[in-house]
Amino acid sequence: MAEPIDFYFDFGSPFAYIASTQIDQIGARHARDVRWRPYLMGVAFKQTGLTPLLDVPLKGDYSRRDIERSARFYGVEFRMPSVFPLHSVAASRAFYWAEAQDVEAGRRLAHALFRAYWVDDIDVGKAETVAEIATGAGLDRDACLAGMADAAVKDRLRAETDGAIRRGVFGSPFFFVDGEPFWGVDRLPQVERWLETGGW
Amino acid sequence: MAEPIDFYFDFGSPFAYIASTQIDQIGARHARDVRWRPYLMGVAFKQTGLTPLLDVPLKGDYSRRDIERSARFYGVEFRMPSVFPLHSVAASRAFYWAEAQDVEAGRRLAHALFRAYWVDDIDVGKAETVAEIATGAGLDRDACLAGMADAAVKDRLRAETDGAIRRGVFGSPFFFVDGEPFWGVDRLPQVERWLETGGW
Repeated sequence: MAEPIDFYFDFGSPFAYIASTQIDQIGARHARDVRWRPYLMGVAFKQTGLTPLLDVPLKGDYSRRDIERSARFYGVEFRMPSVFPLHSVAASRAFYWAEAQDVEAGRRLAHALFRAYWVDDIDVGKAETVAEIATGAGLDRDACLAGMADAAVKDRLRAETDGAIRRGVFGSPFFFVDGEPFWGVDRLPQVERWLETGGW
Repeated sequence: MAEPIDFYFDFGSPFAYIASTQIDQIGARHARDVRWRPYLMGVAFKQTGLTPLLDVPLKGDYSRRDIERSARFYGVEFRMPSVFPLHSVAASRAFYWAEAQDVEAGRRLAHALFRAYWVDDIDVGKAETVAEIATGAGLDRDACLAGMADAAVKDRLRAETDGAIRRGVFGSPFFFVDGEPFWGVDRLPQVERWLETGGW
């Protein structure tokens, strides 16, 4: 099998949520694994001086509308969360804890966390809430809580975030296909054509 | 015929150039006129505090690559101009001068200006150069020069720019379909579906 697709995202990004409902099928259509890579976009913003989309005048108002319209365009359930922005540290740590045991468990937890936050309006910013979601995804509540507090897991998230920034990741979702970078759910048609053609 | 599609753009925007090669056919497929509306994005940036895409760290490097790849994705000829950014005042004034006489002449000139700058690497920032391009588009050189210097034409561009900002336009290309705003060439699939369905 060829190199996996790298899928960088922050759980608090609405376009990452939309992408999360599409990327595994895109990978499957082209016999590629997808490596899910949550990272902390807030750290990237601090290092690059970028501003969260919804905080920009005019652009923020448009973007709220564009996000809901884009979710409907992709046929994806969506509700703007009442607690926003999301503090995504606990969710991201839980992902790396789960993935270290079993790649499929990590992915299952990631889907459950995205859905809890972006469909069911559950604030997944707290470790206790993340552990509840983990239980629903077939994982052990106490082991998940211990995992999020584990120094090795914390280091892993820091390393993934630093690594993402070093690779030039500055937004969410962000993909690499054989080293080629693609930013945004609206680049998925280009990701797909790249997978079909090997570049153009 | 239903309301026209409003197509706001700055001649100095590469994604506007790509959109300019697509939007008339999209309009034609859905029996809609397209109202071409050049405006000065620099004025919008000053009012909103936004930064030109290519000036942002990391994002700028990615965007250079994304622009060339997107042009190839759409099958559009493209060469990054050696003079960039473009001072788009003269080109925009010439457009409104030409359009006031004949809508088709305006559109023909707009296509010629986009092509001169984004394919043939001609700096269309100067009035003399714009007048040369106008000649190639079947317009009169001296009349074009006089048009760009005409106070009524200058006022028209100012009014279009102010009007765009009042409508919430903050980028390029930017479209309205029956009042619904769409930003970016990557929203053309949504524009097209909106035209097909009347919204979703």
